[in-house]
Amino acid sequence: MKNKAGVEIPDELLTKYGYKSFDGAELGHPESQRIAPKVRVSADQSKIVDSIEELVKNNVKNGMTISFHHHLREGDKIFNKVMQIIIDLGIKDLTLAPSSLTNVMNDMVVKAIKAGTVSHITSSGMRGSLGDAVSHGILKDPVIFRSHGGRARAIETGKIKIDVAFLGVPNSDEMGNANGMIGDAVFGSLGYALMDARYADKVVLLTDNIVDYPNTPASINQTQVDYVIKVDQVGDPEKIGSGATRFTKDPKELKIAQIINEVITHSPYFKEGFSFQTGSGGAALAVTRYLRQSMLDHGIKASFALGGITKSTTDLLAEGLVKKVMDVQDFDKGAADSMHGNQDQQEIDASWYADPYNKGAMVAKLDVCILSALQVDTNFNVNVLSGSDGVIRGAIGGHQDAATAKLTIISAPLTRGRLATIVPKMTSITTPGESIDVVATEYGIAINPARKDLIDALGKIPGIPVYTIEELQEKAEKIVGQADSIEYSDRPVALVEYRDGTLIDVINQVKE
Amino acid sequence: MKNKAGVEIPDELLTKYGYKSFDGAELGHPESQRIAPKVRVSADQSKIVDSIEELVKNNVKNGMTISFHHHLREGDKIFNKVMQIIIDLGIKDLTLAPSSLTNVMNDMVVKAIKAGTVSHITSSGMRGSLGDAVSHGILKDPVIFRSHGGRARAIETGKIKIDVAFLGVPNSDEMGNANGMIGDAVFGSLGYALMDARYADKVVLLTDNIVDYPNTPASINQTQVDYVIKVDQVGDPEKIGSGATRFTKDPKELKIAQIINEVITHSPYFKEGFSFQTGSGGAALAVTRYLRQSMLDHGIKASFALGGITKSTTDLLAEGLVKKVMDVQDFDKGAADSMHGNQDQQEIDASWYADPYNKGAMVAKLDVCILSALQVDTNFNVNVLSGSDGVIRGAIGGHQDAATAKLTIISAPLTRGRLATIVPKMTSITTPGESIDVVATEYGIAINPARKDLIDALGKIPGIPVYTIEELQEKAEKIVGQADSIEYSDRPVALVEYRDGTLIDVINQVKE
Repeated sequence: MKNKAGVEIPDELLTKYGYKSFDGAELGHPESQRIAPKVRVSADQSKIVDSIEELVKNNVKNGMTISFHHHLREGDKIFNKVMQIIIDLGIKDLTLAPSSLTNVMNDMVVKAIKAGTVSHITSSGMRGSLGDAVSHGILKDPVIFRSHGGRARAIETGKIKIDVAFLGVPNSDEMGNANGMIGDAVFGSLGYALMDARYADKVVLLTDNIVDYPNTPASINQTQVDYVIKVDQVGDPEKIGSGATRFTKDPKELKIAQIINEVITHSPYFKEGFSFQTGSGGAALAVTRYLRQSMLDHGIKASFALGGITKSTTDLLAEGLVKKVMDVQDFDKGAADSMHGNQDQQEIDASWYADPYNKGAMVAKLDVCILSALQVDTNFNVNVLSGSDGVIRGAIGGHQDAATAKLTIISAPLTRGRLATIVPKMTSITTPGESIDVVATEYGIAINPARKDLIDALGKIPGIPVYTIEELQEKAEKIVGQADSIEYSDRPVALVEYRDGTLIDVINQVKE
Repeated sequence: MKNKAGVEIPDELLTKYGYKSFDGAELGHPESQRIAPKVRVSADQSKIVDSIEELVKNNVKNGMTISFHHHLREGDKIFNKVMQIIIDLGIKDLTLAPSSLTNVMNDMVVKAIKAGTVSHITSSGMRGSLGDAVSHGILKDPVIFRSHGGRARAIETGKIKIDVAFLGVPNSDEMGNANGMIGDAVFGSLGYALMDARYADKVVLLTDNIVDYPNTPASINQTQVDYVIKVDQVGDPEKIGSGATRFTKDPKELKIAQIINEVITHSPYFKEGFSFQTGSGGAALAVTRYLRQSMLDHGIKASFALGGITKSTTDLLAEGLVKKVMDVQDFDKGAADSMHGNQDQQEIDASWYADPYNKGAMVAKLDVCILSALQVDTNFNVNVLSGSDGVIRGAIGGHQDAATAKLTIISAPLTRGRLATIVPKMTSITTPGESIDVVATEYGIAINPARKDLIDALGKIPGIPVYTIEELQEKAEKIVGQADSIEYSDRPVALVEYRDGTLIDVINQVKE
């Protein structure tokens, strides 16, 4: 039987891995029992330990679940250091449960898998050598991909039970009071890591900056921390940014950004107090710049900007065009630097940001959201996890979560090189089409037919043709032709959870 | 068998109420499993409900545990309002588990007990008509008194399982993002209430000030809140203060304050970066003023001030004499007003403040602490719960918690009116003598003989006689004579927990 995203998932797979199949984006009001950590009581005067080796030896056992955060992205200097020590100590069969895996970690994870150190992974995504190895079957059991909100849910409900969390921070005192806002490795919001700090049985902070006790503001506080370790360098904040911190000059990206801005400003949501999430990357920055001008032109201010935050967004805060920045993650050093002392740039944890299984996440109040896509199909489903060759090379991030916004716009060039973005059948489904309202390409837009109100509002914007999604798909196919079909084995290498913990898709091993 | 505080507690009582007997203040490193709430999932756009009656009807059932905070102290306008509605609805057999009970709540609690609405109470303390009624046996089962840290522990470990928490806040948005720092009912830190917000199954915010979404800073956030209710008035912050916000002119209090200041400055703890907790009341304010001068004279700055905070302490912060104020509760509007926007006045929850069963509370790092006493015995044990007539008229507050400081000084006039403060046998024991280092009276000090180091350091302060605690007791007895012995029945009306959850004393019903 097909799930609500149109994917056939075999019953025996659901049974084997303990899943229900995706049954729609609506949640209702189920009751959910939270879990809580085991706490080792301490009235010690300091938690500083000298040796990561000793700490790992005493606390990490075969079969445990360990975690890291990815706030420093490509500038992270913690993951590889700790993982190498764990490998060297011969520890086996760990589940790796980071908030996500960035490129700088790829080779080390592959090494850890080959050494038998890591046997299970749950992550927001993966790329490069790791995505390639997983797609070709390096792991016995499939990886579980979860959105940022989905990970928060899984941690809070016990689906992920972290034994030891290794969290890099740019400052900490001797007891573990720490924040992400000050120091050489400043990365701003600790949003994802706050979940690990609260729910892991053992919490280890690694910092290059031991400060006087008591350290404030304390995003992570001493009641959550077992050990503090001094390291030479936590990370390089200059490498947090994706590189795309400058206004794009790509005419295709500019065109899409202009169209998205028109869609937003013609929508019923563009009014005083609206809220938005734009994300990162050159096109998102361009949208933010156009949107800024529209807000000035119309005398409209936003109540909040949400999600992964860039300097372009904190600049809107400084300018007074955005009243609050609700910040789960900073995408560049500029946004990170702006957080300290700024009560309107509120640090939020992943649960508050996006956990569908709490008493209300920020995403549920989000008006406008712009998201990217590797592929879009003619049911408006979106894939951000696997390439057109079926190989894993992406991350869910907050995609499924933020897509629940009242107006979700997918920013997608019709084609990339010789590949169509809008396709009859994607290599995997990440976010269900029922969450997607508009697909914006450089040729024009497609509006989800379920949103008749939007067809009325957005159907006649001067200069922006409206197509059916099928028309856009055909247009793409005319340009680049049909893609070769991919040969998969029937062995699953990755399970794609929807944010509520149901199974939305399964990614199978690709054949060479 | 006597417990470590010298109290004989019958085995059958320990068994009946599930207690171990107090076995000393040292905790070691036990492992403790935390509990977690049940969460009703919601993606609703607003949590505002109109009627407290409807909300109570739908959420409060016979036999449940409900809670309130006491941050507004004598200015609270929430407790009586909600409790009257619960009584009127005929709900029975509730356990009342507030952070504490202030005088303004006394009569309503008595009424609720008489109506059968409240059958069990756990609190930090009680006074007036309620203390009197409980001491005379109005409740079938004994009240459980817990320190602020002990309540945090009990909540975190499931000994207190709050079904519905009713929390007054001076501001909230429609989703439950709230703080204590802004609004007509400003009271500053939400320290005690943060425990209820995190652990109660249902959390209700009551506010007179619905603000724009999203509200920041959010001490309580929307992931914790089920309902928001608008009320006319949350409270009167002018009545938070105990009245004693002016420098005392009582010569006895001034004398004790001067002596305490000398004890501190002659102790080995008075050095750059020391930490202290002074508490509230006229004598505490006087100590703070003398200590300020000593810090200026010696060029010494404190790393932090802890606990319940007064304006005299936030003034030290503003002056730079204290680097951080770690603030679980504000004792006057001045301290409350100073919190907003001040990152050096860190809001801390009751667990971080004092829970002995976490990974480290602030009190474990505390150098100097000044505490009051209703009675002190010749083993340095302290009573802050029951009067010399055996009637309950006090509160543990943070007494047991902060007494674990490296230098704990009890501020105690030798006599009060016709009553001795230092007595051979107290009416109940709150804090064990092993935690108490110095008792300071207007006549001089007594040093706990276990602290030989302090006898060396404090034994020869010019003008401050050192007595044994027995000598002070005899001196008091010479002045006011022996107290009449009290007649108790053998029925327990209150159990006094030590902060770790062992039983330190039992208070029995007084005979008329």
